[in-house]
Amino acid sequence: MISVEEARARILAGLRPVGTEIVALAQAHGRVLAVPVLARVSQPPADVSAMDGYALRAEDGMAGARLRLIGEAPAGHAFTGSVGAGETVRLFTGSFMPAGTDTVLMQENAVAADGIVTIGEACTAGRHVRRQGQDFLVGQELIQAGRRLTVRDIGLAAAGNHPWLCVYRRPRIAILATGDEISLPGEPIGSSGIVSSNSSMLMAFIAARGGEPLLLSIARDDASAIAAAAAAARGADMLVTTGGASVGAHDLVQAGLETHGFALDFWKIAMRPGKPLIFGRIDEMPVLGLPGNPVSAFVCAILFLETALTAMSGLPAAGPVFGRARLGQGVRPNDAREDYMRATLEWRDEGWVATPLPVQDSSVLRALASADALIRRLPHQGALAEGEAVEIIRLYDL
Amino acid sequence: MISVEEARARILAGLRPVGTEIVALAQAHGRVLAVPVLARVSQPPADVSAMDGYALRAEDGMAGARLRLIGEAPAGHAFTGSVGAGETVRLFTGSFMPAGTDTVLMQENAVAADGIVTIGEACTAGRHVRRQGQDFLVGQELIQAGRRLTVRDIGLAAAGNHPWLCVYRRPRIAILATGDEISLPGEPIGSSGIVSSNSSMLMAFIAARGGEPLLLSIARDDASAIAAAAAAARGADMLVTTGGASVGAHDLVQAGLETHGFALDFWKIAMRPGKPLIFGRIDEMPVLGLPGNPVSAFVCAILFLETALTAMSGLPAAGPVFGRARLGQGVRPNDAREDYMRATLEWRDEGWVATPLPVQDSSVLRALASADALIRRLPHQGALAEGEAVEIIRLYDL
Repeated sequence: MISVEEARARILAGLRPVGTEIVALAQAHGRVLAVPVLARVSQPPADVSAMDGYALRAEDGMAGARLRLIGEAPAGHAFTGSVGAGETVRLFTGSFMPAGTDTVLMQENAVAADGIVTIGEACTAGRHVRRQGQDFLVGQELIQAGRRLTVRDIGLAAAGNHPWLCVYRRPRIAILATGDEISLPGEPIGSSGIVSSNSSMLMAFIAARGGEPLLLSIARDDASAIAAAAAAARGADMLVTTGGASVGAHDLVQAGLETHGFALDFWKIAMRPGKPLIFGRIDEMPVLGLPGNPVSAFVCAILFLETALTAMSGLPAAGPVFGRARLGQGVRPNDAREDYMRATLEWRDEGWVATPLPVQDSSVLRALASADALIRRLPHQGALAEGEAVEIIRLYDL
Repeated sequence: MISVEEARARILAGLRPVGTEIVALAQAHGRVLAVPVLARVSQPPADVSAMDGYALRAEDGMAGARLRLIGEAPAGHAFTGSVGAGETVRLFTGSFMPAGTDTVLMQENAVAADGIVTIGEACTAGRHVRRQGQDFLVGQELIQAGRRLTVRDIGLAAAGNHPWLCVYRRPRIAILATGDEISLPGEPIGSSGIVSSNSSMLMAFIAARGGEPLLLSIARDDASAIAAAAAAARGADMLVTTGGASVGAHDLVQAGLETHGFALDFWKIAMRPGKPLIFGRIDEMPVLGLPGNPVSAFVCAILFLETALTAMSGLPAAGPVFGRARLGQGVRPNDAREDYMRATLEWRDEGWVATPLPVQDSSVLRALASADALIRRLPHQGALAEGEAVEIIRLYDL
């Protein structure tokens, strides 16, 4: 059995970002940028007014001065003439500054009547003017490649005049569930069958973390059936199997995949839940074999599948992000396997308190669904008392 | 001018959840459940084995006992006979317990040869058996209505045999950008025009928070053009406008909407950035008028649009979630307007440190895109020194 850390390193070792594609800007939120976004325009494109008011020359901006109103420049409509000494032009937030002017008098400080604008309060040179390129200049890099795009990045790319962005495509992850006993929800259930939760859960997991799930046929417990179903994974970026990974005579996933040239990297890791994890390759395609118990499958998905998706999506390869919490109740010493306990979180006395759920059975999905976090326990870690610090992985929308 | 809190309360006052729809389970992640999910099956459906091994009667489980192997029950294939005293049946993780048995001997503790299984280590009654309904019983509530569905909820609903779920539909939010000066990215730009960032940013914002954005035509600065564009919002759950909300002569949004019977609730709030916020209704449809400056529009979207989307999506109405941080540098006293400063976050000495960005101009999108959080400053709050506690809103994927 290898450690969680070594397993993650071995999985990441062979992963590369998938290819790129062009998407419409409005669809790019959450995608990973593949080509930097450079500004195609300057913003503002010229000196513009930051206020509704009057454009003038700074030297005319004395309190009490009377300026001749010679025109107006609504936003989007430049004043085409030039403004001389003693003259002013009406403008609005976003109006281009007319030639000859460098300062804006706020309308609240002006009295306009009969074509004359009287200055209420002196204005300093450059006041209420946004300089050309104050936000960015044409050619400047607005967004670096390798960044997962936020809503604000979408706004920034729009302001830089990009209707399309080049992003990494979503990694295509084929899901192969195996077992004579399982059916998909709503399908007929055998007399000693159960409904597959892993297929639906993994589809949602993969989509939630930027991948494109492909659900293959459920394979019966037969090496040739597994081989036939797995054939449909060709062209996927990764194959994820569930079940069939433990030691019984009916554990046929490896046998079935071997007909496609499956090369095993490792099998079994020192972890709870999730010991029977398989990793290997069919040619270049990585194959991750998750345990059949739904809690084990979910925890392994967080620790290994999410990491793999990150690396394939063009982001820096990294394991899960650990936060800090204090224990809401003591825990016994841990054994040789790294343990991920399901726990609730509560904000108390300016910090998070994580309390393990009473049920830690890896087949009990209802307890998992009620958890807020996983508490990580390192191998051979001693007993911990209530209040001691632990590392947690928050589950958020997972 | 009204306070941020009052503005939020007035916006929420008239909002109700939108209608419901049925979606395929695989598409339900992130949606808000409208009808509780009750288990349609028990899980496990019967007593099942938690291990690969041998089923027996507890009273036969003495160390050294020799049992007669009378059959096998792979997962999905029940043993149809009954198991008597001194008999055993081979089974696997998930196999139904054969009639007459109540205990599982792990295969690691057994030696099988010539149809005889010899027990290595005594087994206690009920060992390695998962009881029928240990996870849930048929008819039990698995997921409450009004919950945003996680990946684990999808797995749980699958295990409960639900191929479809009834969720609130996505609120349809029409977006109306106005201004003679703006173009969409990639469209021709006028000689004194700029590219609209708000339209794209709001589309991404609404989609990221569970809504369905409908981008209406950009309306020129003309009341009848605004009225014509706004007509297409009929049938939407909310209309969001950008720009045209300040005091200039070219601020025509209200005039344009009045032709559709727009009833103003409030205009202007004591907030920075974002003073010129409009709220009202056209018949039953709420209308939120965001400022034209992109930073102001974004901050108002977090404070008001996200809250509105939450309430319309069937979740409990609530304002933004505030976290805690310490200031990375001191800030000056605040004036009468509640202020949301753009800041970076850094994890230091077991806590978050929030440092205001040097540029707080509401037209500068590049600084906004680099922020990690907003620091909230209450009206008339005094100066704060480095290290003092502040409330923050984390921006995450926004």
